[in-house]
Amino acid sequence: MRKRQGILIVLDGLGDRPNPELGGKTPLESAETPNMDYLASRGMCGNTYPIAPGIRVGTDVGHLQLFGYDSAEIYSGRGPLEAYSAGMKMMPGDVAFRGNFATIDDDYTVIDRRAGRIRKGTSELAESLNGMILEDGTKVLVKELTEHRVAVVLHGEGLSDKVTCTDPGTAAEGSRLVVPSALDESRSAERTADNLWEFTQRSYNILSDHPVNKERNEEGLYSANAIITRGAGLERLMPTLKDLYGIRAACVAGDATVGGIAELAGMDYFTDESFTGSFDTNLTGKALLTLRLINEQNYDWVVMHVKATDLAGHDNIPVAKKEMIGKIDTAIGLILRKIDLNSCYITITADHSTPCEARDHTGDGVPTIIAGGDARRDIVTSAGESQFMSGCLNNLTANDIFMLQMDLIGFTEKVGS
Amino acid sequence: MRKRQGILIVLDGLGDRPNPELGGKTPLESAETPNMDYLASRGMCGNTYPIAPGIRVGTDVGHLQLFGYDSAEIYSGRGPLEAYSAGMKMMPGDVAFRGNFATIDDDYTVIDRRAGRIRKGTSELAESLNGMILEDGTKVLVKELTEHRVAVVLHGEGLSDKVTCTDPGTAAEGSRLVVPSALDESRSAERTADNLWEFTQRSYNILSDHPVNKERNEEGLYSANAIITRGAGLERLMPTLKDLYGIRAACVAGDATVGGIAELAGMDYFTDESFTGSFDTNLTGKALLTLRLINEQNYDWVVMHVKATDLAGHDNIPVAKKEMIGKIDTAIGLILRKIDLNSCYITITADHSTPCEARDHTGDGVPTIIAGGDARRDIVTSAGESQFMSGCLNNLTANDIFMLQMDLIGFTEKVGS
Repeated sequence: MRKRQGILIVLDGLGDRPNPELGGKTPLESAETPNMDYLASRGMCGNTYPIAPGIRVGTDVGHLQLFGYDSAEIYSGRGPLEAYSAGMKMMPGDVAFRGNFATIDDDYTVIDRRAGRIRKGTSELAESLNGMILEDGTKVLVKELTEHRVAVVLHGEGLSDKVTCTDPGTAAEGSRLVVPSALDESRSAERTADNLWEFTQRSYNILSDHPVNKERNEEGLYSANAIITRGAGLERLMPTLKDLYGIRAACVAGDATVGGIAELAGMDYFTDESFTGSFDTNLTGKALLTLRLINEQNYDWVVMHVKATDLAGHDNIPVAKKEMIGKIDTAIGLILRKIDLNSCYITITADHSTPCEARDHTGDGVPTIIAGGDARRDIVTSAGESQFMSGCLNNLTANDIFMLQMDLIGFTEKVGS
Repeated sequence: MRKRQGILIVLDGLGDRPNPELGGKTPLESAETPNMDYLASRGMCGNTYPIAPGIRVGTDVGHLQLFGYDSAEIYSGRGPLEAYSAGMKMMPGDVAFRGNFATIDDDYTVIDRRAGRIRKGTSELAESLNGMILEDGTKVLVKELTEHRVAVVLHGEGLSDKVTCTDPGTAAEGSRLVVPSALDESRSAERTADNLWEFTQRSYNILSDHPVNKERNEEGLYSANAIITRGAGLERLMPTLKDLYGIRAACVAGDATVGGIAELAGMDYFTDESFTGSFDTNLTGKALLTLRLINEQNYDWVVMHVKATDLAGHDNIPVAKKEMIGKIDTAIGLILRKIDLNSCYITITADHSTPCEARDHTGDGVPTIIAGGDARRDIVTSAGESQFMSGCLNNLTANDIFMLQMDLIGFTEKVGS
C-alpha cells in the first residue's frame, strides 16, 4: 500500500447539544471555525460513537477506542493508566492503584481527602515509600502525579485486581478508611487485599514522621500522612500500534491520562509545561510540535489532544467552550498552512460528548471530520453536530474512524487475497 | 447524571411500504399526524432495525429488543412469555409451553385445533388439570389464557426445552398429535418428552369426562378434550431493568404478550378491560394512565403500547391502519399537552414492520422519533418512512434506541473514568 501520514486532532468532550445560551446552537455550531469548515467541505463528516449509541465513556476508554482498541478487552481500571502516566513501567501481573495523598487521624478517619491539595514535597513523600517490601515479598512502587495524586503499584506473584480499595469516596471526610477485602474467592484477591492494607498502615507510620509533614504541621497545613487508593487494575499485555499496524505514532498532549494511554499503545508521548490541559494551554506550541513530528521527524500518525473543551462542558460554560473551539480552529489553521494535505490526512474528532447542560459525559455521537488527499467528500460544508447528521460517517464508531485513517495512510492488511 | 423521565410509545407493526391504495404512500406517511410531525421536527428520526436489516421478529422478540435486551441471549420460546402473561410465576429450570384447548378423537387425530374457538368454561377445564403430579414427581401447572389459549408449565428437576411438542401445526386438522421426542441426547430432554406425553394422555381422559365438555356435547359444540402444545421454553433468570439501569419502569398495554415481557423485565404492568389490543382500544384511557404514571407516580420510564396497527397490517387494510395512526396521534397530542417536554423525553417507534401487502412481519426498518428537552434535532420535520431516511437515527437498532433513551434520562453508567 501507498504510505501517507495522518494527524488526529482530539477535542476532548467536544460533542454538545442545542444550548439556549447560544440561541439553540451547539458550541461547535456557533463557533468561528473557518479551518474546520474548510476541512468539512473537502472531506467526510458525521457524528460517531465512542462505542455505540447511548454508551457513555470516560476519557481513558474514549481514547482507547480512538486508538483502535476494543476497550472491553483491554480496560482494567484507571490504576494502570495513572501508573503509565507517571512513567512507571509495569510488568504483567502487577496491580496498580490510583491514589491521593490524604490527611487521616490516628483511628484512620479521613480529615481531608487531598491533604489540603498539597502541591510541594510529594516527590519526597512518594520516595520514602517507594520500594517497600511487604511481608509476603511483594514490592510496592510509589510515584507522585500532579498535585495530591499518586500512583501505587504492587509488584509480585499471585496478585489480583478483584479487591476493594481504601478510599471511602468523594464525599468521605469523616469516614474511616475502607479495610480492603477480596471481591472474589481467589487466594490472590485475598493476598492483594492484605498487601494493600499492610502498605496503608506502614505508609501512615512512615509519612507521619516525614520531614515534609513536620514542616506542614508547623505551617498549619494538613499533613499528607496517608495514601488512599482506588481504581485497582491488573496489568495486561496490550499490543502496541506498532505491533498491530506497523505505524510509528506520537501523541502531543497536556493530560496525564491521555499520555498514559498513548504510551500503553506504544506511542511516543510529547508534552510540555505549557500544555496545561486547561483553557490557558499553549495551542500554538502544540500545533508547532505536531508539525515538527510530521514534517521533520516523519511520524506516520500524530495525535494532538486538547482538554479544555471537556472542562467547559463539565462547568456548563457554553460561551467559553465556543471560544475555545475558535482558538483551536486557529491552531488547526496553523497546521493546515504547513502541511501538504495531499500527503497528510487530517482527522478531527472527540473522545466523547460533554454537553454543557448535562455537565457530564453522555452517550451522544461526537462530531468527526476526515479530510485530505484523495479522501471522498460528502455534502457537508461546515462544522457542527446538525450539519454532520447528513454526513457519510454518521453513526460509525471510534474504531471505524481509526481504521479508516489507517487505511487512508496505507497501514491496513488485506483480508484474503 | 442529571435525571429526567421518558415515555416510549410503541405502535405495534407500524412500519409499512408504499401502498397503491394510499397513492403510493405508507399508512404513516398518509395519516394525519400533527403531533408526531411536531415531535419529528424537534427531535431525531430514522428507520431503525429491531435486530439487524432484514431480520424479521415477532412481537415478543421485538419488545425484548426495545427494552434493551439481547433477545438471542434471553429468548427461549414463547411458552414462558405466555405463562408470565397468565400470571404464573415460573422458577428457574421450569419448562413452559403455549397450548390450545383442542378437539381430538380417540386415536388422537385433531378434529379442531381450537375446540370450536371455545370461550366459556376454560377456567374450570384448566383447573381440573392444574397441579397434576406426573410419575417422576414433576408437577404440571395449567392456566387458561384468552379464548382457546392455555399455558402449561412443567415444574420439577432435570427438565429441558429441547423437545418437540404435540401440536401438529396450523393446517393440521386430520393429523394425529405429535408424540413428543427429545431434540438432543440429554436425559432431561427425554424425561421432558415423556412427561409431556403423559400429561397429554391423562389430560385427554380427565377432560373427556369433564362437565363442561358434557354440556358442550349436548349443545352440539366441539368438546375441549385435549391440550395441544407448542413453543417449549426454559425459564431463565433475566435481569430486570431495575437491576440493570436502576430505573423504575411501567408498561401500559392491552396485549398479554407485551405485558408478559414487561413483567419479565421487572416493569409494573398496567392494563384495563377497555385496552382491547384491537381497533376499539381505549386510546384516551391509555394516554391518561401514561400521564398519571409520569406526572403523579413519578415513574422514570413508561411504555405505552398500541396493537391495532399490527392487526391492520396482517389483515391488509391500509386505510384502517392509516386511520388508526391518526387516532393514536390524537392520543399523543393529549400526552404532549400535559407533560413538560423539557424534563420528559418522548420516543415513538415500533417492535417491527407489518406492511399491509406483505400481511406479515418483515425485516424493514421501523419509523422512530426521539424528541424532547435538549435532544439534538435533525433535518426531518414530518413523520414517515421516506422522511426518516434522512434522519440521524437511520439504520440504528432497537437496542441503540433504548440506550439513547437511558442516556438522555440519565440512567447510564460511564464506562471508564
